[in-house]
Amino acid sequence: MSDTHYMQMALDLAAQAQGQTNPNPMVGAVLVKEGRVIGFGAHLKAGEPHAEVHAFRMAGEQAEGATLYVTLEPCSHHGRTPPCADLVVSSRVKRVVVAMQDPNPLVAGRGIQRIREAGIAVEVGVLEEQAIQLNERFLHNIRTQRPFVVVKTAMTLDGKIAAHTGDSRWITGPSARTAVHKVRDEVDGILVGIGTVLADDPELTTRLPDGGGKNPTRIILDSSLRIPETTKVLDTTVAPTWIVTGPEHDEAKATRLRERGVRVLSLADRSVLHLLEELYKQGITHLLVEGGATVNGAFLEAGLIDKVMAFIAPKLVGGATAPTPFGGTGFAKMSEALQLRDLSITVYGNDVCIMGYPDLGGDN
Amino acid sequence: MSDTHYMQMALDLAAQAQGQTNPNPMVGAVLVKEGRVIGFGAHLKAGEPHAEVHAFRMAGEQAEGATLYVTLEPCSHHGRTPPCADLVVSSRVKRVVVAMQDPNPLVAGRGIQRIREAGIAVEVGVLEEQAIQLNERFLHNIRTQRPFVVVKTAMTLDGKIAAHTGDSRWITGPSARTAVHKVRDEVDGILVGIGTVLADDPELTTRLPDGGGKNPTRIILDSSLRIPETTKVLDTTVAPTWIVTGPEHDEAKATRLRERGVRVLSLADRSVLHLLEELYKQGITHLLVEGGATVNGAFLEAGLIDKVMAFIAPKLVGGATAPTPFGGTGFAKMSEALQLRDLSITVYGNDVCIMGYPDLGGDN
Repeated sequence: MSDTHYMQMALDLAAQAQGQTNPNPMVGAVLVKEGRVIGFGAHLKAGEPHAEVHAFRMAGEQAEGATLYVTLEPCSHHGRTPPCADLVVSSRVKRVVVAMQDPNPLVAGRGIQRIREAGIAVEVGVLEEQAIQLNERFLHNIRTQRPFVVVKTAMTLDGKIAAHTGDSRWITGPSARTAVHKVRDEVDGILVGIGTVLADDPELTTRLPDGGGKNPTRIILDSSLRIPETTKVLDTTVAPTWIVTGPEHDEAKATRLRERGVRVLSLADRSVLHLLEELYKQGITHLLVEGGATVNGAFLEAGLIDKVMAFIAPKLVGGATAPTPFGGTGFAKMSEALQLRDLSITVYGNDVCIMGYPDLGGDN
Repeated sequence: MSDTHYMQMALDLAAQAQGQTNPNPMVGAVLVKEGRVIGFGAHLKAGEPHAEVHAFRMAGEQAEGATLYVTLEPCSHHGRTPPCADLVVSSRVKRVVVAMQDPNPLVAGRGIQRIREAGIAVEVGVLEEQAIQLNERFLHNIRTQRPFVVVKTAMTLDGKIAAHTGDSRWITGPSARTAVHKVRDEVDGILVGIGTVLADDPELTTRLPDGGGKNPTRIILDSSLRIPETTKVLDTTVAPTWIVTGPEHDEAKATRLRERGVRVLSLADRSVLHLLEELYKQGITHLLVEGGATVNGAFLEAGLIDKVMAFIAPKLVGGATAPTPFGGTGFAKMSEALQLRDLSITVYGNDVCIMGYPDLGGDN
């Protein structure tokens, strides 16, 4: 079997832990000796052993003289676990095949270097594109020090997110709504504006048809702390709730909210960039924005959207004043519009979802 | 071979004349004797022979004792050609299989009756659904005495038909625009509001990549006759131009326009229903509405849309005040929105087209 065959196996193993390794990347490893798989593993959860450790444990003493296939460069630093590069060296494998170098500045080639210095052959770049795609969000985090931002919208076939009266239930059908709950299960933060809370009083939790799923941290942008204290999203026994407000807010209300377990973040700089940097520092790596027109428009104008999921329901509601998914000022010319690339189209019942990545020529 | 096999052949023959039989329906006919096809035909153009005539000519004297498969009931009236029912009887076929009865009130079962009265067995309803679908527009015309109305829109993935400045070139790419020109080639009328003429100065002609195609009659809704006399659509050497105006218009200007070959229709009743009834009387059977938000919104609110073709370009332009495909007041509740059925999704380059038929529970 070829190197790509075993690397594909390692990538497939890595992908089994989709959504459960944050803030770590997904990694898979396979040990092969004389054409026989003698061990394999994947990183399953931050703080638990790396993929290589599981593979070497499975192989035991047979590892000597084997080839290690690993989807990400073995680490060279002492994190919550000892450096994998040292383990690779001490196991006396003959050859190491790596899909991609670790972009983490603490590693960044040092793992590969250490293994090579021990006289072990290292090949880098086998199925590199697939490895990059597998960990797109992790790589984005490392590079930008910001969460990976997915904006999800749901509109009618005439571009409305609500009727002119504000009524918006429901635009899409149950199958599309379930798809959204699956995304909520994958992310660690969900963000809306206070307008959405006031209009819809949403729970912003993950509700899968068969139950289960984890709730993301609910993040409400509410610069003047207008949130009604009876609103559902303030029930912090269900999921964490953070309110991002401005420096001029009512401190007594903030205190009451804090006493109920709500985290109140006061940011002087109201730019989207600063917000995202702050959320990343607070541990949010993957953010789902389900804001109304204003919040989505602000993310669009800031150029800080990493992925768009646009659900379209085959119905026409009309109305010159009915709101659309992205408000704000908007771009002046159609040629300035943010183009999406790598599109995918999925049908959910009667609804269609168009997904794509902004063509920023950059770090998506 | 079965009845459905030969009827499918007749339907396929009929469909070869797509777009060229107006105001007549598409019809195909096949003559079969002892398991062998002995003749076939299709109606190709109004005023030319019906499908049955071609088939009988091909079969000659062999027709005696054969089975005739025909997609529409043979006609019983003297139109521009003699009644086909008489031809069927005189040809002495043994059996006639008909996909559907002719909804034309001048026929409506009389053709079938005449054939049966001559002692020939007639079976009705083989592949009836396909026959209905084939002639959806013709059937609509006969039933409603109005044109079949297709509304075509093109918007960004955030529901805008232009930037907030009005700039709209281009939303979709060349492949989607070619698809629109193919539709223009099929219809006999194209309708826009004066707003679109003022904003874009469009030609509203059919421009296919390889040339050819026929231009529809260009119909401009312009209640106060604001059309600039230098605008492209007034060049009637290219295609007919009709302006629908109100009774209060500038008569001197109307006279100048008429002298240039423009037809000026003055309608006192400004409802969409009355407009469509009038256009049908004037010979428009298949109307493409490419109006802006106001015109499209009026058709939506009147409940007089028969088909929607919504092109969606994967780009985000933003803007709370940017126009959407359907304006007007709009429905007050999302549950009142016009639902589309029988959806189809087609990809044109980077753009997506969602097509569907309003679920009016009626005459589509």
